[in-house]
Amino acid sequence: MLKKTIDITKIINGIAASEGIAIAKAFRLEHAELTVEKNSIASIEKEVLRFDEAVAKSKSELETIKEYARQELGDDKAEIFAAHLLVLNDPELLGPIKEKMKTEQVNAEYALHEIATMFVGMFESMDNEYMRERASDIRDVTNRVLSHLLGVTISNPSMISEEVVIIAEDLTPSDTAQLNRKFVKGFTTDIGGRTSHSAIMARSMEIPAVVGTKTVTGDIENGVLVIVDGLDSKVIVNPSAEIVKTYGEKKAAYEAQKAEWAKLVNEQTVSVDGHHVELAANIGTPEDVNGVLENGGEGVGLYRTEFLYMGRDCLPTEEEQFEAYKTVLERMKGKPVVVRTLDIGGDKELPYLELPKEMNPFLGFRAIRLCLEMQDMFRTQLRALLRASTYGNLKIMFPMIATLGEFRQAKEILLEEKEKLQVEGTKVSDNIEVGMMVEIPSSAVSADLFAKEVDFFSIGTNDLIQYTLAADRMNERVSYLYQPYNPAILRLIHMVIQAAHKEGKWVGMCGEMAGDEIAIPILLGLGLDEFSMSATSILKARSQIRNLSKEDIEKHIDAILSMSTAEEVVSFVKEQF
Amino acid sequence: MLKKTIDITKIINGIAASEGIAIAKAFRLEHAELTVEKNSIASIEKEVLRFDEAVAKSKSELETIKEYARQELGDDKAEIFAAHLLVLNDPELLGPIKEKMKTEQVNAEYALHEIATMFVGMFESMDNEYMRERASDIRDVTNRVLSHLLGVTISNPSMISEEVVIIAEDLTPSDTAQLNRKFVKGFTTDIGGRTSHSAIMARSMEIPAVVGTKTVTGDIENGVLVIVDGLDSKVIVNPSAEIVKTYGEKKAAYEAQKAEWAKLVNEQTVSVDGHHVELAANIGTPEDVNGVLENGGEGVGLYRTEFLYMGRDCLPTEEEQFEAYKTVLERMKGKPVVVRTLDIGGDKELPYLELPKEMNPFLGFRAIRLCLEMQDMFRTQLRALLRASTYGNLKIMFPMIATLGEFRQAKEILLEEKEKLQVEGTKVSDNIEVGMMVEIPSSAVSADLFAKEVDFFSIGTNDLIQYTLAADRMNERVSYLYQPYNPAILRLIHMVIQAAHKEGKWVGMCGEMAGDEIAIPILLGLGLDEFSMSATSILKARSQIRNLSKEDIEKHIDAILSMSTAEEVVSFVKEQF
Repeated sequence: MLKKTIDITKIINGIAASEGIAIAKAFRLEHAELTVEKNSIASIEKEVLRFDEAVAKSKSELETIKEYARQELGDDKAEIFAAHLLVLNDPELLGPIKEKMKTEQVNAEYALHEIATMFVGMFESMDNEYMRERASDIRDVTNRVLSHLLGVTISNPSMISEEVVIIAEDLTPSDTAQLNRKFVKGFTTDIGGRTSHSAIMARSMEIPAVVGTKTVTGDIENGVLVIVDGLDSKVIVNPSAEIVKTYGEKKAAYEAQKAEWAKLVNEQTVSVDGHHVELAANIGTPEDVNGVLENGGEGVGLYRTEFLYMGRDCLPTEEEQFEAYKTVLERMKGKPVVVRTLDIGGDKELPYLELPKEMNPFLGFRAIRLCLEMQDMFRTQLRALLRASTYGNLKIMFPMIATLGEFRQAKEILLEEKEKLQVEGTKVSDNIEVGMMVEIPSSAVSADLFAKEVDFFSIGTNDLIQYTLAADRMNERVSYLYQPYNPAILRLIHMVIQAAHKEGKWVGMCGEMAGDEIAIPILLGLGLDEFSMSATSILKARSQIRNLSKEDIEKHIDAILSMSTAEEVVSFVKEQF
Repeated sequence: MLKKTIDITKIINGIAASEGIAIAKAFRLEHAELTVEKNSIASIEKEVLRFDEAVAKSKSELETIKEYARQELGDDKAEIFAAHLLVLNDPELLGPIKEKMKTEQVNAEYALHEIATMFVGMFESMDNEYMRERASDIRDVTNRVLSHLLGVTISNPSMISEEVVIIAEDLTPSDTAQLNRKFVKGFTTDIGGRTSHSAIMARSMEIPAVVGTKTVTGDIENGVLVIVDGLDSKVIVNPSAEIVKTYGEKKAAYEAQKAEWAKLVNEQTVSVDGHHVELAANIGTPEDVNGVLENGGEGVGLYRTEFLYMGRDCLPTEEEQFEAYKTVLERMKGKPVVVRTLDIGGDKELPYLELPKEMNPFLGFRAIRLCLEMQDMFRTQLRALLRASTYGNLKIMFPMIATLGEFRQAKEILLEEKEKLQVEGTKVSDNIEVGMMVEIPSSAVSADLFAKEVDFFSIGTNDLIQYTLAADRMNERVSYLYQPYNPAILRLIHMVIQAAHKEGKWVGMCGEMAGDEIAIPILLGLGLDEFSMSATSILKARSQIRNLSKEDIEKHIDAILSMSTAEEVVSFVKEQF
């Protein structure tokens, strides 16, 4: 009989969550088992005190982690821990726990566990992505309190002090925020997808990661050599010397390529035949501007203002918003900054607005629809933007515009606020372009009508695709219909660009498609003026465009627009460009 | 002081649910208050027997009502009572009631009320229109049982024996099904909308109705004279002699017009300038064919096959389906019958399929998406259709086609089943046209690609509008975006018709828009070949089209397609045609 053959190479397939290659020893990140017993307690006052102390310790740890996250990862990531702190300040959670301790004369661990389980169950059963995520927040936070009550140390990835690849069932937001980039070379998990918390974090930290493998914690022991291939969605366990060599080369090649791309940081984005396009970045917070500049972004193509409204329990004030917008505009030093007004609703909820539950939130009361009704909130944001406009090159765009009536109304409100400010003696820039997202089929089909009244369009492909094919992009059962290269999508993009150019207006794109290798040649050929993507994709895209000829592609555009299926388009592009 | 001024005329505005004018005395339809007490019961066996008897009586009443409904209103309306009977056969409802009686030694009324309230609450809180409607079914049915237990007679509108207008908070399905058309001249309710049960029933019974008035039960006493104006959404209480005279004339004019329309029953639908179009009807069951023929329908433009699958607890067999399809084809005597394959999912659920809950069911796993995966179910339907094809002029269409790949796959499955049947020696027609619904923006935008492979298109405007404007048509907060005359919708319809005609294919429309007075001139001008609507709208539409000139309208089509807003289109059409 063979003894345990730890030296057999094993290849595990997963989902590439962050590009790059990591080769290092496995470090299994395991969470201590927290076992809860039920005990009768005579002196409840003392027990409540013990509970309060555990909560206080947890809060102070969370403050530390939040600060670490703010410095290392930026404001939006730190918001996760602000949300955790809110949980620990929530009387609706803490009240029932103490109540249970008192009425049932039970220990803090038991009361906490029971109430937390109830809340987690409640949130998990909700028909809403955002609320379901709240379940994992509550679990993360209450486990922290529980570990203090039990005197168990919870794993702390910030203590890792040698080069490793982390192996875990999943990474909690707290785990990810504490990863030390110096030592953690990559990670791989059993669960998660490209849009899970940990995947998004991995990309912004540029740590190679493969998630959703289903089996890595079962297959990989502590200390064995592991390769995480975030380029080809693979994890290789116990690679032979030869494989290590091959992957070393692949890693070197990738890094050389990245270094090559890095040289383009101050270059223009110009095609072989001299056509210039603008490569911009999508951002969520003022801190993200650093990444934009480091990666040679020529502007901000989409500033999502939602983060200002999230992870808190009331609306942000005009002043708070003004400061954020001003900061971004100043740091971008005159480069264009396209700010999208509040796009909330759908899968993005603000608990404090107490909006009614909807049967089809993606087809519901969201974004501009909501802003046109909740005008106080909308006007506050517009005032903050107008006041900030003198600090840089501001462009304002409205999301989810379906009819010309909506655009006219939104623009009118903006002009009203502008006039009010000017009457009050506040300086407002006179060069603010006002545009709109094209993400609803009706506005693409009628782009010629809109083009007469807007200053620019930005095509939001994520939503445009889901509405045009009537398929929820979060629903796995219809994910085969999320087709960026479907002829209908390419035709709508074509219509929008043609209509805009006819009126001398420019067109950007801020959906995921703008940074996609297959899409870029087509979009260049269609005449897209601005491509807005994750900051980390800019240099690669610039390198690609500098090797493409717009004229060449243009010759094939009619053929591409007449193809029958997305598959045909993809194989044509792969072959030709 | 004035004494109660019963002779002051009052006008109450509501929602027109069914056309026409009724003038008669008010009859308040009130449901006896059912008061439930909790009593301890010594002999539970007897109490259970008493409960069983009440259930049995209710069932026998429901059988009678169901039969009445089937004769008077057709199969689909009778299905409501089949569903009620299912409730009374459901062990998941009856079991807990008896259990409660036994374990708590309580009376049947109390146990029934408690358990029923729990179920009603559960269904009402569900995030799904269909399930919420189940709550009102359960309430209706359990009140019937309760009234038998309490010895209270529930109101029976079938006993009315003089001409009245019914005033009610709402009408239950049982109420509506028992209305005697001879005596009930109209009705008006506090609650409900155009698509509520009672509104749909009123239209199919051709009883004038105004619903959603909020106040009629508060404002109208028994016996006072009432006018229900289902043409202008008004209820007039205590009209003066003069008003009665005016409305008598309005009623006569409407009825004269209806009589005029009735003369067109065997006429062709030809415009002033000699252009022929086909006016067809939408049906749900074989019984609906009578209405189609009585109203001069030139075909069935949409046979919704969902009713075959609803109100039961398993899939219909091939034989059951075959019989239904054969009946429709035979009764239509060679006139075209377009059958839509199963369009389930979204807001239409089949409980026995146990589909997963979705966050956005309208963008989810439904219709052809579901059929292509649940192929056994799909193939059974296709076999039934193919076998029935020799009995008339069958056309088959697939719903919710988003990509050419889906259409090709569906058609291939159809051809496979056809070949199998032929190998088995079963006769199948060789002239079955195979088409698709155009109700997803992608298929409208790529209609030229589809037109090469389909035999016909049928535009489903209800869904096309909701996807194109990204607004759930059931969601009141975004109902302002449900715009049939939005330029984008008109352009998409134009694209579809142009593309089809270029390939020599015909285009129908089976959404509500096809029977709409404002839409009809535009659709005629755009070249629509077939208009499919409620049977009761056909004669009016025929009369309208016979007064229109297609050539005249065509001169204005470019102008209409260039208008900016739906409002502009509406006022132009009203003025011009």
